[in-house]
Amino acid sequence: MVLPRLVIIGSGNLATQLTLTFSEKNYPVLQVYSRTKESASALAGKIGCPYTTDVAMLDAEADIYICALKDSALQEVLSRASFHDKLVIHTAGSVPMDVLSKYTSNYGVFYPLQTFSKNRRVDFSRIPVFIEGNDPENLSMVKSLAGSVSNVVYEATSEQRKKLHLAAVFACNFTNHMYAIAAGIVKENGDFPVGVLLPLIDETAEKIHTLSPVEAQTGPAVRYDKNVIDKQLEMLSSDKDVQQLYDLISKHIYKYSRYGKF
Amino acid sequence: MVLPRLVIIGSGNLATQLTLTFSEKNYPVLQVYSRTKESASALAGKIGCPYTTDVAMLDAEADIYICALKDSALQEVLSRASFHDKLVIHTAGSVPMDVLSKYTSNYGVFYPLQTFSKNRRVDFSRIPVFIEGNDPENLSMVKSLAGSVSNVVYEATSEQRKKLHLAAVFACNFTNHMYAIAAGIVKENGDFPVGVLLPLIDETAEKIHTLSPVEAQTGPAVRYDKNVIDKQLEMLSSDKDVQQLYDLISKHIYKYSRYGKF
Repeated sequence: MVLPRLVIIGSGNLATQLTLTFSEKNYPVLQVYSRTKESASALAGKIGCPYTTDVAMLDAEADIYICALKDSALQEVLSRASFHDKLVIHTAGSVPMDVLSKYTSNYGVFYPLQTFSKNRRVDFSRIPVFIEGNDPENLSMVKSLAGSVSNVVYEATSEQRKKLHLAAVFACNFTNHMYAIAAGIVKENGDFPVGVLLPLIDETAEKIHTLSPVEAQTGPAVRYDKNVIDKQLEMLSSDKDVQQLYDLISKHIYKYSRYGKF
Repeated sequence: MVLPRLVIIGSGNLATQLTLTFSEKNYPVLQVYSRTKESASALAGKIGCPYTTDVAMLDAEADIYICALKDSALQEVLSRASFHDKLVIHTAGSVPMDVLSKYTSNYGVFYPLQTFSKNRRVDFSRIPVFIEGNDPENLSMVKSLAGSVSNVVYEATSEQRKKLHLAAVFACNFTNHMYAIAAGIVKENGDFPVGVLLPLIDETAEKIHTLSPVEAQTGPAVRYDKNVIDKQLEMLSSDKDVQQLYDLISKHIYKYSRYGKF
């Protein structure tokens, strides 16, 4: 089977991981594009392919153009490119597929539900990828691309994908912010390394592999232990923002435990 | 070396894990106490030791009495017990050591920074245990007890422990609540199993083993992508509580990224 030739547009966290992963799977990556020479050459250098910093100079020989750009940059970059009516796919959770219709008549979406870093390889085979295509043939091409790197591929409409992205913001970004606040409290305390939190953080994530999060909940908020909650709110009195967060999340935990839909 | 004889007071998640762990380490567990016969006998049955539901009938032969009770029950239960001036330790994050002085002249604290379930064994050796003792000899007894089950033992004052407990509420309970909200959004969406979130949740926890949470942050809030944030707030308009949480946490993430102390 001849694998489709790819051009990767973008050089951020996801673009980097996609370039590495597709290249490992033997897809010909003809070119990578990034706005700056520094990041374009850095990414191209990782797999030894050409790069460009001029989106008007995308390699016309590609079969699939994969745009892994920030939502805010996506349309501006695409509007300056020529795709020769080839398949163009984006990777964004919250961007409807149809924004691509202005640039080609063949388009789709490849949305991996994961957080990516430039320098951390992740096992792509376990990452759920939500795909969409504007017609059965394009859907099938996206499906075969997704299926070649992940074992967990779902079709999802733009509407569904938007909600998955919202869920991901809670599961990842907001969770990580709880870690940040916790780490800050340990650091201010002074005498212990922040790493003392890691076994707790790991077990909290591990637990919900077998229990639902509502079943897994413990701590003062779920039993609404007013004595502990009031003391902890008092400890946060020097940081009104964190205090307000503590109060709201505690009340909401209690509410879920009693009236939760889950 | 003759190991001290233990009595475990309580039969909840932590009491259960401590009973199992100390028993495995060959400590003689003389007795477990719980308010109800059902839970007392269930826990005692796991290691084949006697139990009581009458706290006035605690075995007088023990060397250490370990109280793993809810904060709200601790003092009420202790006030009905006789400890014959033996070493009494509690396991609570937010309870000062000195509350024990009313019941014995030998006391201390053994606070493991972890979330426990009755039916999930955890690897105790990695769990940080924060200890305190009212004199050097009692501290040394608590230290040796802690050191026999964990490789990560720190001395911490009651004041420090209170802050560690506060950090744990963010790192565990509040984090778990972010999972609960995310799971709810996926469930409402209808078409995908909640498990699609697990690789993301795992990677989010895994990432901060090598990056600080502020460095690890990604997503719309950290770059204050107003377009995505506004769309996501709009999607939450049917649940004002979650909408308010989303708004506050997003603003706070952005604030940390720009002015964070960490």
